[in-house]
Amino acid sequence: MKVALAQLNYTIGDFEGNSAKIIAHIDKAKNEGADLVVFSELSVTGYYPHDLLEKKEFIQKAENTVAKIAEHCIGIAAIIGAPRINENERGKQLYNSAFFLSNGKIQHIQNKTLLPTYDIFDEYRHFEPNREFEIVVFKGEKIAVTICEDLWDELPTANEFGKDKLYQVSPMGELAKLNPCFVVNISASPFSYNQEEWRKNVLINKAKKYKVPILYINQVGAQTELIFDGGSVAIDETGEIVMELKYFEEDFMVVDTGNFGEKQLQPKADTIEKIHNALVLGIRDYFSKMGFQKATLGLSGGIDSALTLVLAVRALGAENIRVLLMPSKYSSDHSVDDARQLAENLGVQFDIVNIQSAVDAFEIGLVSLFAGTNSDITEENIQARARGIYLMAISNKFGHILLNTTNKSECAVGYGTLYGDMNGGLAVLGDVYKMDIFKLAHFINRENEIIPQNTITKPPSAELRPDQKDSDSLPEYHDLDRMLFGYIELNMSPKEIVELGFDESVVNRVIRMVNMNEYKRFQAAPILRISSKSFGFGRRMPLVARY
Amino acid sequence: MKVALAQLNYTIGDFEGNSAKIIAHIDKAKNEGADLVVFSELSVTGYYPHDLLEKKEFIQKAENTVAKIAEHCIGIAAIIGAPRINENERGKQLYNSAFFLSNGKIQHIQNKTLLPTYDIFDEYRHFEPNREFEIVVFKGEKIAVTICEDLWDELPTANEFGKDKLYQVSPMGELAKLNPCFVVNISASPFSYNQEEWRKNVLINKAKKYKVPILYINQVGAQTELIFDGGSVAIDETGEIVMELKYFEEDFMVVDTGNFGEKQLQPKADTIEKIHNALVLGIRDYFSKMGFQKATLGLSGGIDSALTLVLAVRALGAENIRVLLMPSKYSSDHSVDDARQLAENLGVQFDIVNIQSAVDAFEIGLVSLFAGTNSDITEENIQARARGIYLMAISNKFGHILLNTTNKSECAVGYGTLYGDMNGGLAVLGDVYKMDIFKLAHFINRENEIIPQNTITKPPSAELRPDQKDSDSLPEYHDLDRMLFGYIELNMSPKEIVELGFDESVVNRVIRMVNMNEYKRFQAAPILRISSKSFGFGRRMPLVARY
Repeated sequence: MKVALAQLNYTIGDFEGNSAKIIAHIDKAKNEGADLVVFSELSVTGYYPHDLLEKKEFIQKAENTVAKIAEHCIGIAAIIGAPRINENERGKQLYNSAFFLSNGKIQHIQNKTLLPTYDIFDEYRHFEPNREFEIVVFKGEKIAVTICEDLWDELPTANEFGKDKLYQVSPMGELAKLNPCFVVNISASPFSYNQEEWRKNVLINKAKKYKVPILYINQVGAQTELIFDGGSVAIDETGEIVMELKYFEEDFMVVDTGNFGEKQLQPKADTIEKIHNALVLGIRDYFSKMGFQKATLGLSGGIDSALTLVLAVRALGAENIRVLLMPSKYSSDHSVDDARQLAENLGVQFDIVNIQSAVDAFEIGLVSLFAGTNSDITEENIQARARGIYLMAISNKFGHILLNTTNKSECAVGYGTLYGDMNGGLAVLGDVYKMDIFKLAHFINRENEIIPQNTITKPPSAELRPDQKDSDSLPEYHDLDRMLFGYIELNMSPKEIVELGFDESVVNRVIRMVNMNEYKRFQAAPILRISSKSFGFGRRMPLVARY
Repeated sequence: MKVALAQLNYTIGDFEGNSAKIIAHIDKAKNEGADLVVFSELSVTGYYPHDLLEKKEFIQKAENTVAKIAEHCIGIAAIIGAPRINENERGKQLYNSAFFLSNGKIQHIQNKTLLPTYDIFDEYRHFEPNREFEIVVFKGEKIAVTICEDLWDELPTANEFGKDKLYQVSPMGELAKLNPCFVVNISASPFSYNQEEWRKNVLINKAKKYKVPILYINQVGAQTELIFDGGSVAIDETGEIVMELKYFEEDFMVVDTGNFGEKQLQPKADTIEKIHNALVLGIRDYFSKMGFQKATLGLSGGIDSALTLVLAVRALGAENIRVLLMPSKYSSDHSVDDARQLAENLGVQFDIVNIQSAVDAFEIGLVSLFAGTNSDITEENIQARARGIYLMAISNKFGHILLNTTNKSECAVGYGTLYGDMNGGLAVLGDVYKMDIFKLAHFINRENEIIPQNTITKPPSAELRPDQKDSDSLPEYHDLDRMLFGYIELNMSPKEIVELGFDESVVNRVIRMVNMNEYKRFQAAPILRISSKSFGFGRRMPLVARY
């Protein structure tokens, strides 16, 4: 059977836009002689609509959209994803379903069995799990339709408790009993640099175990924090990947399940390049789906804001970006020079605003209240917050969305000022550890010096007091990042982190900083997620706790 | 059987503090001749520990604490709540369990069957549901042990889809087959002014249906956003409430399940009084559990900041509060007078800081960048943000936590400045609609004028430009609040809201404002929850969506 894989970028709740895209690709598949075209999980609504699923109107629109798309399936079949109402007397009100459309009608509906409810996933909040397994017969071939997590029944529980298996049922095990000719898996699986291979292996192992080809169709594009990377694949019954669609882009290919032919694979990219591409897509989609075009940010001369700017330029174009250089009396000359050089290298509009008079105005206003106190972090925060006001003024006046430049290491230990440098509509680097920031800068400079070398090599500093360096108050990033990765990504205990070879008092101090700063992260901008455990929706910690 | 109901206030993750409290009440119950003492759901960890449950170390500490508490159960039995590891090969790694302790040992464990995963609840994220029902036999009596939601099997799906029932199983139905003498329900059920009666009715109906007494033991105290109101009850087999514990306070009573005796009920409080008490408890516990004592806020002369201050004084004491009056050139004289009067009425330290010179400094810094533009919301936001900087300076310098004074109506339509008046560690009124703000002010002034009358009666205004009134850009609060309640609490469609008698264009504008401002709420302070649908953790909307 000739099956088209349509890997598309959907906007949540945009029924009109999503269905126009789906219908255009049904036509395209038909023109290319496909018997069937397959779209990704919840393609009609975009993944994931969250509590919009609790609005009856939203579900009715989804239903109407499915019906409209079905009408277009004449001379070709399609599989699309959408929520549908659970008509049974008991259970959650919805299923997460795959609709098999042909002859202008819904011919078959397969509901999702395994509902991920961990990390960033909340599906059991809205959906009832499927308990019945059927197969679609189309043009004499038996097709097993599965939805994303349905193939992940051997997923170990996602932490160190876990040699165990998370799920009670194996949908593929059930469907295999019905002897399908091939398996379709419609998916919405977000990018995470440390789980990518794992995902491919799950699919390969299933194909091998059941000796059946698998067509895996993923969503592409960013949905606020989540970046879906595409990379849809066709896998033959021996577990070989025979066709692979692009990463971080829409793509479309037709495959013959009876004769896969020559392999069509994507070029290998290394981890840093993938993170780079993920972040560019994350910025681009945040803006385009919100209906924004222009961005601003504060350029300090440091590496985080420099990298953010390069990524923003690649996502939105230099002509859509405007930056502020905001020196204070503590800023070094080279900071301004480096920032100016970068803006010039990229052709980005920049202005220099000295924050000192605003800072002085606050300090004068506080003289009598602060009488008898010493200068401390309060005064440092005033600087960071004055910069925040200037940036938000540009944002408010000209409609540029402020990009936040905080990295994951800082975000973890709370090294940033709430309502100051933590401001922004989107935190571009909030899931990138400082050591990876350096790697990304080198990647960007691999052919010519875009980011000034001095920005990369000088010791990191917030420049909020004379001669301040990050390493005055934090361990060297090389060590800090390893401790943080152990604590955040691997859920290691303090004891286990010490056993990696770190000083116990330092480990305890770092962990205390992470725990103490939940309150800051609670109010942080949404963070583009590239790891298996990003701050934000996927890491839910109690704010008020003693631990 | 003589059973003690121990309604206590736990701190999440504070194994030492929680177990000390539990052990002290085991002793107390023993002294008062009880056979059994019952604590609330997850009493060992506090409800709800969220992703701390994914840390193995956390679970081990919980296990050790259960074992330690068990050792104290000599001559008395106890029921406590804690997570435990699921030892089966498949499924989530934990159960949410009730431990029956006696003779120094764990005698029986009952796991929770129905795991709420909607609104603020995330239990299926961490727990495997129970599938086996057993009964505890103690001193010759059969006791059915249930955990919170286990009695809620007839809960309709929580929205307008729903005449249906949310759950597939009825734990009480299963346990009733084993003929228990009475039922124990250990619970952690948060306050919500519009669901409170419903909760009592669920318990009453179960007692009636199965003709069995129910002892319901709730947690009390606030955990960040959630305010647990206590109100534990004993219900006889006819469905009469025969004993009721205090609301919003720790309490302890012993009941004889064989002879309930005379009724002991709490005085009836009206809704506004309950909301008042909930908010005071919410502030008090946020501070005490975080280890803070002192608060600050900006007093504008308006009703929201006035009410916040009164509640803060009641929670923390006037001596722990310090406020700023921060007039600009647009502030009316009476605003400063009203604010000063309130501070004096309450005996709270206040300072007056004029923000104009700081605002001017920003405007001068922006002159060349803003050349040729008109004054707009940008300049209004600079005022709000300058105030934010002053308040955070007080917070940083003296350790006063900033209280946010935004009400739910404003929060809904985005009528507030991000990084300005949206600042704060805790949003005290963020779940209180403006019309209820007025009611709370009248409640506070019911005996004498604490909040100046002028603050209550003058038209609400942000005073960010000359003669500004909220009603210039918003519908009258009387109408606005009803539209918002329909959209947020009741999930009504725009069409349904129009049918309540509102103008279609106004309804659409209000709903667009709600939807457009998800990005602001994403970065808002945690909000004390008093309704069935508060902004925050219980309302998860996609940020980037077209809807």
